[in-house]
Amino acid sequence: MKIELLDEPIVTITNKDEFNLPTAAEKNVAGVVLLSIIEKLNNKCGFSIEIEKHIKPGSGIGSSAASAAGAAVAANHLLGKIYSNDELVQFAMNGEKLASGVKHADNIAPCIWGGVSLVRAIHPLDIVPLASPEIFVTVVHPQIEVRTSDARQILRKQVLLKDAIKQWGNIAGLVTGFLKNDYDLIGRSLEDVIIEPIRSILIPGFDEIKSGCKEAGALGGGISGSGPSVFMLSKTKATAEDVAAVMSGVYERIGIDYNTYVTNIKREGVEVVDSRES
Amino acid sequence: MKIELLDEPIVTITNKDEFNLPTAAEKNVAGVVLLSIIEKLNNKCGFSIEIEKHIKPGSGIGSSAASAAGAAVAANHLLGKIYSNDELVQFAMNGEKLASGVKHADNIAPCIWGGVSLVRAIHPLDIVPLASPEIFVTVVHPQIEVRTSDARQILRKQVLLKDAIKQWGNIAGLVTGFLKNDYDLIGRSLEDVIIEPIRSILIPGFDEIKSGCKEAGALGGGISGSGPSVFMLSKTKATAEDVAAVMSGVYERIGIDYNTYVTNIKREGVEVVDSRES
Repeated sequence: MKIELLDEPIVTITNKDEFNLPTAAEKNVAGVVLLSIIEKLNNKCGFSIEIEKHIKPGSGIGSSAASAAGAAVAANHLLGKIYSNDELVQFAMNGEKLASGVKHADNIAPCIWGGVSLVRAIHPLDIVPLASPEIFVTVVHPQIEVRTSDARQILRKQVLLKDAIKQWGNIAGLVTGFLKNDYDLIGRSLEDVIIEPIRSILIPGFDEIKSGCKEAGALGGGISGSGPSVFMLSKTKATAEDVAAVMSGVYERIGIDYNTYVTNIKREGVEVVDSRES
Repeated sequence: MKIELLDEPIVTITNKDEFNLPTAAEKNVAGVVLLSIIEKLNNKCGFSIEIEKHIKPGSGIGSSAASAAGAAVAANHLLGKIYSNDELVQFAMNGEKLASGVKHADNIAPCIWGGVSLVRAIHPLDIVPLASPEIFVTVVHPQIEVRTSDARQILRKQVLLKDAIKQWGNIAGLVTGFLKNDYDLIGRSLEDVIIEPIRSILIPGFDEIKSGCKEAGALGGGISGSGPSVFMLSKTKATAEDVAAVMSGVYERIGIDYNTYVTNIKREGVEVVDSRES
């Protein structure tokens, strides 16, 4: 993203990629975030922004959060860092509201804070940054589109208490695993008994990928965001690459185009890579 | 508890308190635990046990777990400590099954491990001991009986997904608070949006106690077990004692008999206090 401060209370958007996202500010994820900042500042400024996304929208790997968090952090940089991370999350959530219909911080919090974030609550916002051991992440993005708002709609409004209890155990185990650097506990806890059984129906090859990746040494994993991407966590980069090979193999055989990514958990969130006076 | 090893595969129980609990082994919480150990040992021994409980059954402060965990640890001591803590939890859960109809480790795990226990899962058993800062506990036990099995029955089989999500945040926050010694986070996370709104109906004065104790400085709290006892956590002993005074005040006014207890989180579980050859 390239962003400039304007004197007028407007947002102009230029897309430098092939995704044909809206350029009207009120229909663009980054746009609504910037509009909310302008409103907070009583229309005393505006922004001009150029966006070159490398994440396809509808991937489940945080395409909307990347735009929303990037816009918030960049604007704050131009404004002299007047807002805290939590305030930036609040602004950026307006982008998620536009993208998914729900103001959530699941992806925005780690984009802004870096590392692993626990979003304990949204009202009022309560984000707890968590320490974690070095963990490698493999993601496969099969080239089918699942819109976040569609994926949210197939969820049931109620869940079985016995399943909710299992999940309380798993989320508590996952957090404990991160804080105690306990890889095995992280692996055992990476089981989603609530959302995954429903949403994974929309993802071709999901069960095969999950079991194959675990056999290849992954700690565990699941659906990334609302899908269709699938993530797996591994203790070493070598395992994460083996895992990518398993994922590729499944989609080669099924015959669906895909991208894989191997990365690690970044300690830093959105970064300012260049800053100059115009 | 006093326990002796016998040559015959029987369990004899003597109650030294006023609670009139069953003395037939298969109807007694400690009895079924000992029977399960005898069965595991292929009927090669038996036990004679004297029980003097200081916790009234139906209190919600772990009366059944105290008997079950005590019997398991004591028997293991006589047998030369052949079982691990996790195995002892497995035996002791037979006592909870008798008391509440459900094999759960909620109270047994900390009784055996000491400190704070995360019971991540029951099948297979996965107990994670958690570090915690020094915390003081105030409990009030109003002298009305709520049987665990009754209290479980009024729970709904399904919960709203939005409530379950809040609770995932809270359990993750609670565990993080313990591990990071973050008292404020522990306090913010001590909100049960699932069980408490239903079960607290059975506890006279509950809302008044909770709000009054927080005003007196408690971090937070809730129903102890399945009630009717209520617990509150505090950072200092002085606050925990102020909290006890608030609890007493409420039940004095309502006119219900009660006991209060002020203690801290013990690092050790069940202890062998005396051991001698007969």
